[in-house]
Amino acid sequence: MEQKLVVYNSLKGEKESFKPINKDHVGMYVCGPTVYSNVHLGNCRTFISFDLIFRYLQYLGYKVRYVRNITDAGHLENDADEGEDRIAKKARLESIEPMEVVQRYTIDFRDTMAKFNALPPSIEPTATGHVVEQIEFIKKILDQGYAYEVNGSVYFDVLKFNKDMSYGKLSRRNIEELVHNSRALDGQSDKRNPQDFALWKKAEPKHIMRWPSPWSDGFPGWHLECTAMSTKYLGTQFDIHGGGMDLKFPHHECEIAQAEAVNKKNPVNYWLHANMLTLNGKKMAKSTGNNILPYEMFSGENSILKKSFSPMVTRFFMLQAHYRSIVDLSQSALEASEKGFNRLVEGILMLDQLVASDSSSDFNIGEWNKNCYSAMNDDFNSPSLIAYLFDAVKYINAVSSGLKKISSEDLESLSKSMKGFFYEVLGLLTPEKDKNENESKQLIGTLELLMTLRDKARADKDFKTSDLIRNSLEKIQIQINDTEEGTSFKVY
Amino acid sequence: MEQKLVVYNSLKGEKESFKPINKDHVGMYVCGPTVYSNVHLGNCRTFISFDLIFRYLQYLGYKVRYVRNITDAGHLENDADEGEDRIAKKARLESIEPMEVVQRYTIDFRDTMAKFNALPPSIEPTATGHVVEQIEFIKKILDQGYAYEVNGSVYFDVLKFNKDMSYGKLSRRNIEELVHNSRALDGQSDKRNPQDFALWKKAEPKHIMRWPSPWSDGFPGWHLECTAMSTKYLGTQFDIHGGGMDLKFPHHECEIAQAEAVNKKNPVNYWLHANMLTLNGKKMAKSTGNNILPYEMFSGENSILKKSFSPMVTRFFMLQAHYRSIVDLSQSALEASEKGFNRLVEGILMLDQLVASDSSSDFNIGEWNKNCYSAMNDDFNSPSLIAYLFDAVKYINAVSSGLKKISSEDLESLSKSMKGFFYEVLGLLTPEKDKNENESKQLIGTLELLMTLRDKARADKDFKTSDLIRNSLEKIQIQINDTEEGTSFKVY
Repeated sequence: MEQKLVVYNSLKGEKESFKPINKDHVGMYVCGPTVYSNVHLGNCRTFISFDLIFRYLQYLGYKVRYVRNITDAGHLENDADEGEDRIAKKARLESIEPMEVVQRYTIDFRDTMAKFNALPPSIEPTATGHVVEQIEFIKKILDQGYAYEVNGSVYFDVLKFNKDMSYGKLSRRNIEELVHNSRALDGQSDKRNPQDFALWKKAEPKHIMRWPSPWSDGFPGWHLECTAMSTKYLGTQFDIHGGGMDLKFPHHECEIAQAEAVNKKNPVNYWLHANMLTLNGKKMAKSTGNNILPYEMFSGENSILKKSFSPMVTRFFMLQAHYRSIVDLSQSALEASEKGFNRLVEGILMLDQLVASDSSSDFNIGEWNKNCYSAMNDDFNSPSLIAYLFDAVKYINAVSSGLKKISSEDLESLSKSMKGFFYEVLGLLTPEKDKNENESKQLIGTLELLMTLRDKARADKDFKTSDLIRNSLEKIQIQINDTEEGTSFKVY
Repeated sequence: MEQKLVVYNSLKGEKESFKPINKDHVGMYVCGPTVYSNVHLGNCRTFISFDLIFRYLQYLGYKVRYVRNITDAGHLENDADEGEDRIAKKARLESIEPMEVVQRYTIDFRDTMAKFNALPPSIEPTATGHVVEQIEFIKKILDQGYAYEVNGSVYFDVLKFNKDMSYGKLSRRNIEELVHNSRALDGQSDKRNPQDFALWKKAEPKHIMRWPSPWSDGFPGWHLECTAMSTKYLGTQFDIHGGGMDLKFPHHECEIAQAEAVNKKNPVNYWLHANMLTLNGKKMAKSTGNNILPYEMFSGENSILKKSFSPMVTRFFMLQAHYRSIVDLSQSALEASEKGFNRLVEGILMLDQLVASDSSSDFNIGEWNKNCYSAMNDDFNSPSLIAYLFDAVKYINAVSSGLKKISSEDLESLSKSMKGFFYEVLGLLTPEKDKNENESKQLIGTLELLMTLRDKARADKDFKTSDLIRNSLEKIQIQINDTEEGTSFKVY
């Protein structure tokens, strides 16, 4: 096991050596999706980032318990705590049971993540499935004096907590500034201070999702579910807590406060945050129309991109950026990624056809392998890893065309590393893996025929036809290469 | 909507007209899997049976809320209530968190059902996700006087319930006989009578899965979860409750008692029970080795069958028996089903190639269609439906070879019905359907391009090129048809 992993800890604002609490074991919690609509690409990016981290930790030999929740209730729609439960609202609009909405979008989420070849987490707990645990947690916070009940609802007392411990350490917010900058309560709220947040909300008569509690028939506050579930499955102190950058404040800050209020200790050693995905330089948002859903990407049914991109190309595109950098989705960036991905796939597939020579290799595999690990050990730097993989592809191509040599020992080692990083760490799949044989053959047959026709057209100087063939095929992800030996094609 | 559906109601022991409580809506609850090991084929048969029922009800136009639970806790291992929670036991054996076991086998279950093309239920609630609801239900049973607490556990008082209402009406067991035939309690049990069953069990100190309750830290009894969840999502009275035959007693009997104890009315109008799957004439059981798992069937990795069988062949094999009959799995029966399935698939695929004639049809489509519905309306008689589909296949083959004729109106009607019953009601897929979507699109794309080029060649009187295209495609089983409207193709 490589022991030099360094991660950027949002809590400290710097990179730190990674040392798990229990040797060889890692406990990791990641805030999962709210299942009241189709999962959006920005969320997918977050989950793909943590899939990379999950995969790499396992690749290093750690036994990882990866807990990612499903928020199926309690996520309030408005700014903080005054709104109605989002899932209940959607259900009324469609006049179906809230849990039918949950089921529909949970299935969408799972299917989408499976298309991205993201591994399922070790445990996938739901908020509604942990109401008992949340009620128990509220009781403990009340016992410690850091919460108060008003009219059947319970609120966390941020100012009181901040006097004894410290609120704002993750997002580095100053509570005095927060108080100074917030508007006064309008008299409609039961909260003592605007910074306070709901642990339990009394349900309005019409509210469908409700559970009995010592305070009222109601529902738990959103921040609480993650604290209750992470504590239940990973303990009062665990290694990694992840999520999207936008969850740092107030969600993760509130999680820390809730846990510290009860357990009087720092709940999480390493806070990791994945950055945003933008679209054509702007924030993705349904309201502005600057938005694209995963299935719209895969099918090409969208007005933003000129063609479809496969889940693997999209995944590769995301991994070409570091998880802490903003990634901007655009036609040209995706096309560049598609080309790169195809080049990488060709390299991977060529490995099995390379012939080793008796002489020594023209490439230092040991050093290259070390560089690959160093890249990933530097806070999961996938773009740097991918750059090294491209170095190897260049070498593989050179060996294939007889320009360079590789020893059989090095070939074995290179093959093992390349496949390990490609399939296991980056979680990529070669398109070959799931082709239907018969259609594959027919597709190759039709393409061979098209190449014959194109060669003939070019020989006849009928460039209109030869261009028509090239352009039509490009639209369906088939690339034509003209060489001195004739025209060849690649299907992606 | 056809209104003549008749179902066999286990509660009455006879067939009855099906009348839902709310017009056009059906509430259906089916006992789902216990996720502490890979789902076994017998369970799959039950869920495929209810998938057929779910599909047919929807085909008839009903809006169905289909609730199928996941038992992820509380299923006691021993005879009744004395054993330890099965999932906790498995977890200790593998030294992982119980919910990790649950996650692994829930994923296995979902993947397997997806391979069988079973539709996901509308709601898929978990037992651990409804502890609050179960505790509330126990309180109500206690309030009604039909349960008692002993040492932190709560038991349902079957004898007392039987005095006021009637226990045993579903399985037609006589309570006096049950009492007479049961051994006396050994003094180790807290129960007053052997017939009583646990609603809440106090957890032993080492027991991992536990929740706080008014009686003890413990866990709910297995029978309770289905009552709590069916009531929550379908109401105190709903249309259909299904499950395997083996659940009739005591599980479903206890469900009725629990619901009636609180709501004083019959909870379910129609009880439907799917029969067993045997293997080579004997009960399937892990202990005897007379057992085969779904993935072992699909891959052929088993010592019982000589070859692998696809999920669709296996599904078809099961549907060739009525859901209330025992099905015996064997090499010869599966081979016969495979042949039948392939013949049916060929018929379905041939439909699109049939040419209608101007004369009238040699087959009474209207009557045939009525017979198909009558078969399904007779308690979901899928084997009878399949027999009618084979009649149609015989006719389709005769039309295809020119021996019989079909009018264009009848062709449309036959095609619609055949596809409806095959894809939507029986939930079968032609092998074509699982083909790689992307390749299909690319193949269609390349062929459309070739058609354009061929039309151009023909317009230019370049018959050498147009013939080259025709002949090359024929070699790879792609047929070109020239019509006045242009050239079209068929991929085989």
